[in-house]
Amino acid sequence: MPRIDETPTPALVLDLDILESNIAAMTAWAKQHGIGLRPHAKTHKCATISQRQLEAGALGLCCTKVGEAEALAAAGIARIAITAPVLTPARIRRLMDLNRQIELTAVVDEMGNADDLAAAAEAAGKPLKVLIDVDVGTHRTGVTSAATAVTLAALIDGRQGLELGGLQGYAGHVQHVQDYRIRKIRTERDLQVLAEARDALRQAGFEVAVISGGGTGSHRIDAGMGLLTEVQVGSYVFCDVDYDVVDLTGDGSRPYRNSLFVDLTVISANHPGFATVDGGYKNFATDGPVPEVTTGAPAGTSYRFFGDHFGRLEFADTYHQANSGERVRCIVSHCDPTINLYDSYTCVRGDEVVEHWPIEGRGRGD
Amino acid sequence: MPRIDETPTPALVLDLDILESNIAAMTAWAKQHGIGLRPHAKTHKCATISQRQLEAGALGLCCTKVGEAEALAAAGIARIAITAPVLTPARIRRLMDLNRQIELTAVVDEMGNADDLAAAAEAAGKPLKVLIDVDVGTHRTGVTSAATAVTLAALIDGRQGLELGGLQGYAGHVQHVQDYRIRKIRTERDLQVLAEARDALRQAGFEVAVISGGGTGSHRIDAGMGLLTEVQVGSYVFCDVDYDVVDLTGDGSRPYRNSLFVDLTVISANHPGFATVDGGYKNFATDGPVPEVTTGAPAGTSYRFFGDHFGRLEFADTYHQANSGERVRCIVSHCDPTINLYDSYTCVRGDEVVEHWPIEGRGRGD
Repeated sequence: MPRIDETPTPALVLDLDILESNIAAMTAWAKQHGIGLRPHAKTHKCATISQRQLEAGALGLCCTKVGEAEALAAAGIARIAITAPVLTPARIRRLMDLNRQIELTAVVDEMGNADDLAAAAEAAGKPLKVLIDVDVGTHRTGVTSAATAVTLAALIDGRQGLELGGLQGYAGHVQHVQDYRIRKIRTERDLQVLAEARDALRQAGFEVAVISGGGTGSHRIDAGMGLLTEVQVGSYVFCDVDYDVVDLTGDGSRPYRNSLFVDLTVISANHPGFATVDGGYKNFATDGPVPEVTTGAPAGTSYRFFGDHFGRLEFADTYHQANSGERVRCIVSHCDPTINLYDSYTCVRGDEVVEHWPIEGRGRGD
Repeated sequence: MPRIDETPTPALVLDLDILESNIAAMTAWAKQHGIGLRPHAKTHKCATISQRQLEAGALGLCCTKVGEAEALAAAGIARIAITAPVLTPARIRRLMDLNRQIELTAVVDEMGNADDLAAAAEAAGKPLKVLIDVDVGTHRTGVTSAATAVTLAALIDGRQGLELGGLQGYAGHVQHVQDYRIRKIRTERDLQVLAEARDALRQAGFEVAVISGGGTGSHRIDAGMGLLTEVQVGSYVFCDVDYDVVDLTGDGSRPYRNSLFVDLTVISANHPGFATVDGGYKNFATDGPVPEVTTGAPAGTSYRFFGDHFGRLEFADTYHQANSGERVRCIVSHCDPTINLYDSYTCVRGDEVVEHWPIEGRGRGD
């Protein structure tokens, strides 16, 4: 097997030892706290990592889009929950095809869409399991009251094509709150509407078997509340510069470590104090903080975007001069949209490239 | 052929009538001003558009990376200039393979790399044409003085493996200066170093056949200076929100129009004043301005990013409520990194989908 420094850059490098340690840490934590894991595949978009998570005991995977789920199902992943509403006739047809092939769950947040899904599932001859999506304050998707959840449950219950699986409430707006105490206060406040919906459904005689939600940012708080039956953790497998500043546990411990990097090469070094590397807007997510240089450059080196294909390394020592051809490693900025720029993970153990894992869901936002 | 509103979203929609009008406008302008066109394929990454540009009289295409050039060469594009230095043994081997297959030009900005390229080309048995890259103030790549350019020219001239094609100087830092007059002052100031390098090379007895540089932002100014022999225009084929605020001509005319859009679907609309659409960080470049909503929503609707897979439409009328399933069209934010997120262009004439053009260079930053 080649050494990592012989592979072309920009390369998306995944350290398997750390990945495995992150998966093991989350698995052990979930077992200890009696909560289910339904990892979100929108982060890694990869059937091999999905498989590892299932082998470690995950209940299934989450996907955001039908296209993402199709890509993973085609690669053998057989238990998927799609966490956003599926609209339009063509997409609903594809959802029914998926429902025939795998153990599928969908979400719904309005009557018209529930009606469309029911009609399609009845025509397809296999009921579709759905969760009622509840808006817990992110205002992205979800019903806005417990009363609407009950009306929707009655519609679902009355249709042969649909089966009520339970509830979903994803608090996207709290995941990256850096301070644990503030994140806890907001999560506990905002999930009340989900607890109300659960109580209202039960009072109306509906079973609520599954309550799905949460993420890497809130998972410890979610477990403490005892409301969710499963958490949709995604980023814990990799951690990124975005999550490095979030206190995930409230006790100072850091159970999840950075496993995902982008390796770059210095392609021009004609100035003291800075140099140009071969990765830019097309190689890193740009919606969050900048990538963080870890190895290959002097301590204190920072990265700045320098166009579509380039970055600039800025050295703490303004007299330092790099050599072209030198290789540096960066912790990825925001992991999800970064991964979506690559076709595969270059998997390493130490300095050795041991595998390449395809990113089947890359670009499958359809 | 299907209508565009029957295709899955998010879709990268290319209006062929406008694309053709943009290509025709640039071709006519270049002819009138006696300057060569070497369009930059880093923007569109597409062999079909490259072919259209060649048929309209382009001298060849530009690519930033070897991987991008490999993808276009494999799809039949036979005249390519790679505009950034190519380092490391493995990449240089691939460059030599390309040089065997097509009419190739590379750039060089330091002695060590020139020596490596010469040795590889000598071993491969076919000389490589190179331009000396001059730093015109962007400080990304390029030699920093006319004297170094002369030393490098002497090295190139003395090696069987290399052939001196001329000079390159790309002023990336001026392209998006919005005010024409300020952009003109800076371009004319910063390209002086390129003129000095040309004069020094000629004085030392070297031929300088090609002087390549510029972009959509500066092309009119470049032609006025009479220094460049060809312009590396890229974004003019599409225009984007980024370029919509740049006065490209200085005379109020707008010869290039928006031809590239992303179509989205409203997937949740449970609130007055805003709604959620199915495209976010993974569907638009996030390094520049936000996408601009053109059709499908009331006038005054703006787009805000709302996570990896979602956007939020904000309506001027805070009481306006959308319906889920509605379709909107957005002008792309920064075109180059947006295109890099898609596998193909959905090509339309009016409302009809007439073709799908593969984006061969997508993800080929290697």
